[in-house]
Amino acid sequence: MTQSHTDADKVRHWWRTSIIDMEPGKIAFRGHPIQDLIGNVSFPQMIWLMVAGEMPTADQAALFEAALVAGVDHGPQAPSIAAARMAATCGVGLNNVMATAVNMLGDVHGGAGEQCAELYYGIATLMDEGTDLDQAVRDGLDAWRAEHGKIVSGFGHRFHKPVDPRAPRLMELVRGAADKGTVSGRFAEIGEAVQAELGRQRGGRPIAMNIDGATAVIFCELGFPAPLSRGLFCLSRSVGVLAHGWEQMGQGGRNKGPMPPEYLPLYEAKEDDR
Amino acid sequence: MTQSHTDADKVRHWWRTSIIDMEPGKIAFRGHPIQDLIGNVSFPQMIWLMVAGEMPTADQAALFEAALVAGVDHGPQAPSIAAARMAATCGVGLNNVMATAVNMLGDVHGGAGEQCAELYYGIATLMDEGTDLDQAVRDGLDAWRAEHGKIVSGFGHRFHKPVDPRAPRLMELVRGAADKGTVSGRFAEIGEAVQAELGRQRGGRPIAMNIDGATAVIFCELGFPAPLSRGLFCLSRSVGVLAHGWEQMGQGGRNKGPMPPEYLPLYEAKEDDR
Amino acid sequence: MTQSHTDADKVRHWWRTSIIDMEPGKIAFRGHPIQDLIGNVSFPQMIWLMVAGEMPTADQAALFEAALVAGVDHGPQAPSIAAARMAATCGVGLNNVMATAVNMLGDVHGGAGEQCAELYYGIATLMDEGTDLDQAVRDGLDAWRAEHGKIVSGFGHRFHKPVDPRAPRLMELVRGAADKGTVSGRFAEIGEAVQAELGRQRGGRPIAMNIDGATAVIFCELGFPAPLSRGLFCLSRSVGVLAHGWEQMGQGGRNKGPMPPEYLPLYEAKEDDR
Amino acid sequence: MTQSHTDADKVRHWWRTSIIDMEPGKIAFRGHPIQDLIGNVSFPQMIWLMVAGEMPTADQAALFEAALVAGVDHGPQAPSIAAARMAATCGVGLNNVMATAVNMLGDVHGGAGEQCAELYYGIATLMDEGTDLDQAVRDGLDAWRAEHGKIVSGFGHRFHKPVDPRAPRLMELVRGAADKGTVSGRFAEIGEAVQAELGRQRGGRPIAMNIDGATAVIFCELGFPAPLSRGLFCLSRSVGVLAHGWEQMGQGGRNKGPMPPEYLPLYEAKEDDR
Repeated sequence: MTQSHTDADKVRHWWRTSIIDMEPGKIAFRGHPIQDLIGNVSFPQMIWLMVAGEMPTADQAALFEAALVAGVDHGPQAPSIAAARMAATCGVGLNNVMATAVNMLGDVHGGAGEQCAELYYGIATLMDEGTDLDQAVRDGLDAWRAEHGKIVSGFGHRFHKPVDPRAPRLMELVRGAADKGTVSGRFAEIGEAVQAELGRQRGGRPIAMNIDGATAVIFCELGFPAPLSRGLFCLSRSVGVLAHGWEQMGQGGRNKGPMPPEYLPLYEAKEDDR
Repeated sequence: MTQSHTDADKVRHWWRTSIIDMEPGKIAFRGHPIQDLIGNVSFPQMIWLMVAGEMPTADQAALFEAALVAGVDHGPQAPSIAAARMAATCGVGLNNVMATAVNMLGDVHGGAGEQCAELYYGIATLMDEGTDLDQAVRDGLDAWRAEHGKIVSGFGHRFHKPVDPRAPRLMELVRGAADKGTVSGRFAEIGEAVQAELGRQRGGRPIAMNIDGATAVIFCELGFPAPLSRGLFCLSRSVGVLAHGWEQMGQGGRNKGPMPPEYLPLYEAKEDDR
Repeated sequence: MTQSHTDADKVRHWWRTSIIDMEPGKIAFRGHPIQDLIGNVSFPQMIWLMVAGEMPTADQAALFEAALVAGVDHGPQAPSIAAARMAATCGVGLNNVMATAVNMLGDVHGGAGEQCAELYYGIATLMDEGTDLDQAVRDGLDAWRAEHGKIVSGFGHRFHKPVDPRAPRLMELVRGAADKGTVSGRFAEIGEAVQAELGRQRGGRPIAMNIDGATAVIFCELGFPAPLSRGLFCLSRSVGVLAHGWEQMGQGGRNKGPMPPEYLPLYEAKEDDR
Repeated sequence: MTQSHTDADKVRHWWRTSIIDMEPGKIAFRGHPIQDLIGNVSFPQMIWLMVAGEMPTADQAALFEAALVAGVDHGPQAPSIAAARMAATCGVGLNNVMATAVNMLGDVHGGAGEQCAELYYGIATLMDEGTDLDQAVRDGLDAWRAEHGKIVSGFGHRFHKPVDPRAPRLMELVRGAADKGTVSGRFAEIGEAVQAELGRQRGGRPIAMNIDGATAVIFCELGFPAPLSRGLFCLSRSVGVLAHGWEQMGQGGRNKGPMPPEYLPLYEAKEDDR
């Protein structure tokens, strides 16, 4: 090999990927020519192929699709959606509007599903090591809380009380998929055991499983690593972001603030200010 | 109405939306309770409902889905994907990685579909006014170029020569949908007439329709306004962004630059620098 | 030259720059070793050197500095600042908080200074061609409005009536700098002539010069190209963004929405929704 | 208080701030009318006032300014700068270009100063509790590494060996400020003791203090909380981001990728791909 090859190869290797193979006139993803995918696989199948590297069955993709549908939006009260709508009045492109919102789906706003998946996987690992379900749930919750704090991601909702309408429907689909053998049903069992244990710890007051708790069940059943949950949620929520940004562009406005312009933020002087 | 209601109402009205209706325990999108959508509509149907406000037929959604599948990725040579992979090594969340890339899908990198849709709609308007197809294509191209410049978005590709493998497959699906009566086929005709005219203007050298030209045909056939094309492309490309960001996290690295660290940018002194 | 050099050189040339020259143990900006700059030049001088490529005099830098100080913040009513404060409660880094806000300083929210500088430079060009001031102002306004619309960037303020307190102070400094010979004073004259003409066009009702109109005078006096105005404004406003993001982190909160959680966005059903 | 006041007040209180006080014709920051600040305080003083809430002395501001000057840029090899330059060719605004880069200054790329300040403050706390300097350095390093890992932020540089030219100059200024009584000099002592200890732990091979280690000394000497270090670094680095984005706009290009277009990323097929 000449030195010339070495330089070019180093640069090419720096950007190596197993996702896409390109030549002039050829595009293949994970080994599938693009023209064989277009019109033959669903968008959720394509998402799965791209992210996980293999093609899911139709039944797997259907359960995956339900989770993607469930998370698209929760309205302008959410900071990400509000920011997208404000950005849409600031003279930036629709892509910038979308990026503004997705950028805010951080550990607190968009990370609950990932954290909940970590909890479920932790409990499953304890069970693999021989602990029974109830004990694994208690130990798993203790370990999770030592890292993440008291509030358990995936359960409870400050607004949807007593029930988040998305969770029971998603769990119904998981059970159906387990009956068909598409998934094992193991994480549905874990999720519901966590919910029951949290209720016991609150002195018998039931607590709802929320959208993050339910989608984490699905992503765990389907074998996705926990950190991917946030990315998949971002894909799903991008739909609501686009819808709201676009609606705001139709409503018009310039430099839309968080409240009508006649209301001013309250100024609280500090004692040491002059 | 009391003054109290007025203040609260003003604030609520400031954030009004026709997309989502919420009460504790209730979420409805465009009038559809979320639990009726989950598991019953496809992800592309949900995207369409959220963005356009009405539910598409299964056939409409299938054509729409093909466009979403076609645009997911074009590899790390694209600045957006490269930036996402670099961001993935900088200690930010996966949502920030995704936002970094989507933020770069601006007029030049992500706007070609929108611009091409404007061209197609402009030609269609001329035809509505009585101009025949060939003349409308010539006049539409002239008008479009006066605003956007000489290079016509949606046609030609610096890499995929002579054919972008995504376009013929998408056009095949459009023609199939037109045969079934799902769409009119009018914009397929316009797109191909533009392609032919551009070839004539190049002295008979054929020019390829690229992914933007083909997806613009689909979005126009399905009735989406031109500016939405960019938003829909961002949704589609977010899939590749997530896949590449996630792959990079697996590859590791810290502060990945654009080339291996042993290559330094060339410094070009300016004469007036000291 | 061997082929080996060609590959490495091509890559290095791809990232060529005249800003920074680096070797192990050496960093020089625009020809100045960094250790000679630290402690010897002011931050505004450093900004100027980096962006414009040459070192300003102390007097030039002082006028430049006044513009940077003037634009740091306009409170949480501005969408960028509100978004930064919301982002600060979403579990992202302080850098992501800052980026969220700067990303929203688009054509409408952050572009007024740039547009106003274009107006001033356009008028100056007409004068260079022999038109007198008053006629150049009228013609320049006509030309600018044909491109940008009726509302003239840099004049009037929806909140600060009748006077934006930043503008007179900045103009006072410009006149002082003109008296010292630091700047020509030409753009101060143009800015005030535009202000007078706009008042005449409103039937004699005076209109304020706002912060964008005044900083544009300064940036034009100092010779910065119009598009840089937005970048310099972003640097200045980043200060307020950081202050507000940091204050919000101290106030706490999780997923701060645009209004207190007890107020819900108004749902406006569309007739065709089911 | 009427209910009417309650609603308006709740909304105003939701956006309360101690940074800015506004009325029509009035803007005051931290109690200072803006017209008294413009032309009378330096940009670094303004930054300090905004972020920390009080006005620094000229000597404090001078040391602060040196840190801001030192961090403006480290060239296109840094992922943030490379991303900014690529974004500048994608058809987005200069503000979006800047946001793209700042968004990437995360825990790994922009967080070293913050992490190093945590180390210094931890050591200072141990000394406040009675531990002597050398023991506090060893214990502080152990505690810090238990949380952050083996590589100590602020020391060593993969490129600048043996010396980062910015650090000695900054430390010289800190010692000068300590001689004048502007700062205590305590964190300079801690920083140098950490550097010496790290050298001992490497078997006597000296290790450089880098830009992050030196600016952390300054920010600690001046009393800034550790997390602010990242924000202040983002302000400083925004200067280089703007300079590079602007230079790239002048160089031109469309959709600039990470390497010249004739080099393609290497495709590495996975065994299970078809």
